[in-house]
Amino acid sequence: MTKRKDLTKLSDDDLTPVAGGGLLHRRLFLTGSGLAAAAFAVPGRVRAEALEVPDTMTMVSPEPGFQGYGQPSSYEAGVARGPIAEKNALYIAGPGAVRSPIHALEGMVTPNGLHFEITHNGIPDINPDDHKLIIHGLVDRPLSFSVEALSRYPMVSRFYFVECAGNSGALAAPVAVRGNAQTLHGLVSCAEWTGVPLAVLLQEAGVKKEAKWFLAEGADPSSVTRSLPSEKAWDDAMIALYQNGERIRPSNGYPMRLLVPGFQGNTNVKWLRQIKLVDKPQQTRYETSRYSLLMKDGRAAQFKFPLDAKSVIVRPSPGVGMHGPGLYEISGIAWSGRGTVKKVEVSADGGQSWGEAALSGPVLPKAVTRFRMPWRWDGSPAVLQSRVTDETGYVQPTREKLIGDRGGKNFYHCNCITSWAVDAEGGLSHVYA
Amino acid sequence: MTKRKDLTKLSDDDLTPVAGGGLLHRRLFLTGSGLAAAAFAVPGRVRAEALEVPDTMTMVSPEPGFQGYGQPSSYEAGVARGPIAEKNALYIAGPGAVRSPIHALEGMVTPNGLHFEITHNGIPDINPDDHKLIIHGLVDRPLSFSVEALSRYPMVSRFYFVECAGNSGALAAPVAVRGNAQTLHGLVSCAEWTGVPLAVLLQEAGVKKEAKWFLAEGADPSSVTRSLPSEKAWDDAMIALYQNGERIRPSNGYPMRLLVPGFQGNTNVKWLRQIKLVDKPQQTRYETSRYSLLMKDGRAAQFKFPLDAKSVIVRPSPGVGMHGPGLYEISGIAWSGRGTVKKVEVSADGGQSWGEAALSGPVLPKAVTRFRMPWRWDGSPAVLQSRVTDETGYVQPTREKLIGDRGGKNFYHCNCITSWAVDAEGGLSHVYA
Repeated sequence: MTKRKDLTKLSDDDLTPVAGGGLLHRRLFLTGSGLAAAAFAVPGRVRAEALEVPDTMTMVSPEPGFQGYGQPSSYEAGVARGPIAEKNALYIAGPGAVRSPIHALEGMVTPNGLHFEITHNGIPDINPDDHKLIIHGLVDRPLSFSVEALSRYPMVSRFYFVECAGNSGALAAPVAVRGNAQTLHGLVSCAEWTGVPLAVLLQEAGVKKEAKWFLAEGADPSSVTRSLPSEKAWDDAMIALYQNGERIRPSNGYPMRLLVPGFQGNTNVKWLRQIKLVDKPQQTRYETSRYSLLMKDGRAAQFKFPLDAKSVIVRPSPGVGMHGPGLYEISGIAWSGRGTVKKVEVSADGGQSWGEAALSGPVLPKAVTRFRMPWRWDGSPAVLQSRVTDETGYVQPTREKLIGDRGGKNFYHCNCITSWAVDAEGGLSHVYA
Repeated sequence: MTKRKDLTKLSDDDLTPVAGGGLLHRRLFLTGSGLAAAAFAVPGRVRAEALEVPDTMTMVSPEPGFQGYGQPSSYEAGVARGPIAEKNALYIAGPGAVRSPIHALEGMVTPNGLHFEITHNGIPDINPDDHKLIIHGLVDRPLSFSVEALSRYPMVSRFYFVECAGNSGALAAPVAVRGNAQTLHGLVSCAEWTGVPLAVLLQEAGVKKEAKWFLAEGADPSSVTRSLPSEKAWDDAMIALYQNGERIRPSNGYPMRLLVPGFQGNTNVKWLRQIKLVDKPQQTRYETSRYSLLMKDGRAAQFKFPLDAKSVIVRPSPGVGMHGPGLYEISGIAWSGRGTVKKVEVSADGGQSWGEAALSGPVLPKAVTRFRMPWRWDGSPAVLQSRVTDETGYVQPTREKLIGDRGGKNFYHCNCITSWAVDAEGGLSHVYA
């Protein structure tokens, strides 16, 4: 346990900004306190009188009593995936997306009910007793596994993020789209996944030398099919059966999905029903008409799997504003498809100066990492940004640099820095800065 | 990434038992494979023919389409907290407990809907806009915090288990109670909790020197009240607002609970409404008539807060049996109220010989740690046990030793080794061995 700072020994240094706009040293929070009562005047925190100690609470409603499967408080109904578009209401079986309310969440885990969801043609209703996973193609022994059989195999549990290749794609638009953290960046979530390493199953099947790729196909009506390099199978790919302890949710691939940590979301094929070992990419429609990256010379890049490092501040953010000047904690999430988050820096002056944020452990490879930064807002307009560096040394680029490198036609793998403008009333909005 | 073992290089050593009854070296799973196709004959895993590749799945039902808050598959309805006793159905506002289905879960995280729940007089329906936390007593500045105000404070996120002091208490009974992992040991769960360190708030209030204890009171109709040593506040206690990313569930204390990591469950006061700094324990009814430990000399021990190290095998376990001889993965959970799990050993011969299990990372202090052990069951009767050692060197005791030390009248803090008997048909049952 880190020794907490004694407030009586708080030095002037602790409240000296480390960067412009009032960013303070992360030590202030790392030590667990450092908040001088005088400096921290929060509305709603008032001096109490003894009489204020509340009477025994009377229950407005004794229901629902004990529940086999619990639900959130009704007061949290606004914390939901969304938006659920009119189009989706009409074509409920069709393609679409709902985004995680990342502006309302904390920590690194996304609860299963709020994990983002994309379907290319609806959620199949699969009875696990009827489902099979077939491994075939360039193998010595084609194999078929029931869910029950797979559950017998040795498993691993790992925290991994999953992110759609199109997440944050709105930042490719020529003018800053109005939106909040959820609508702009909510196609990312993080869970503890448990499943069977794909390598175990491939070794049982006996993979032929020429099988440099494998095709993974889902059992949804659109049969999402993606070609993936066999190296990933021998590395960290798994057939995931559990999500945050319980069986995977229908919208996340029940009863099983492929998990290729750090790779763009659609390659983590849901409702997985076959893996076929092949010698080369199969040029399916999900790697030609979609999920290929249109570059500035008009050509399309294919098979760019790992997601580059990204970060975003979620508190404050549009809709989650400030109430008057004072001390605030800036809270955000960062991740990289290439490993661990090494550093997150925060700017309150639109990128002119940066201070290093505290990372909340455990910091795990290809998982979401929560960062926090103390900030004394003086009530004047500001522009908040965050910038992550991952373990490979890769630094999250500015929007200008990303578009300069790739051109503005591609909205996949859009991982540039997000800018939130703070106005004098403490409201936030998405801007290009 | 650990290099995976090449099956073609699997040596005889890898399949040599490390302990009686067929326990194999944990290396077999740590390396991610090691399962010779010949050795691993799982029913439901069969040789596939090309024709077996399934047709495109047709959706039985296109509903429910997109949901703001997702739910588990209907095929998993049996994975629920329980048992929900007749008594609880009659007195739904009253005291009672529902246990986590730990036999059906994997990894370290308990999903929020399946977190165990104990209420001493129902779940209060609290509108967070009306709730306040008061800190008073031996302080310089009594303070009152709204939920909104608390949400402005710096936060920490940590994975911690919560366990009822009465969990596993059935093992104090003179004969082995019929039960499974859920009914015997399901009053433990693990989540990522996010909240404000209590130390931050106490420093703001200014704690007087004589305040060696604090009283924490919940806002449920039974006003659960516990005295706790102030040292815990300066160490790792927090006012938790979030559970696995989202706001705490009503059954876990919405809108806020005290989290005193590693301490017996009821001291993690739910629906927290006041913390009063005091000079000595207050002898509330939850530390006199309940939660005191009756020792063998007839006296009662009070204020035994940390939960001693415990482990239990959940797969296989009663109701989660084997289907024929062959290779299996033994999977279980271990935890300690005093820090990290250092080692888990598994026995298949009722404690005559032990082999060391693999621990699934991250191994975190006062959190659940998943352990896994390869086992080749030969089809003959066996007795499975697990034994954890924590970072302090404490070793989980046998039932005989625990009762010898404390006497058999106390069913709190019952952390002895559990024995599952395996019969020749692969069924399991709870025994004393």
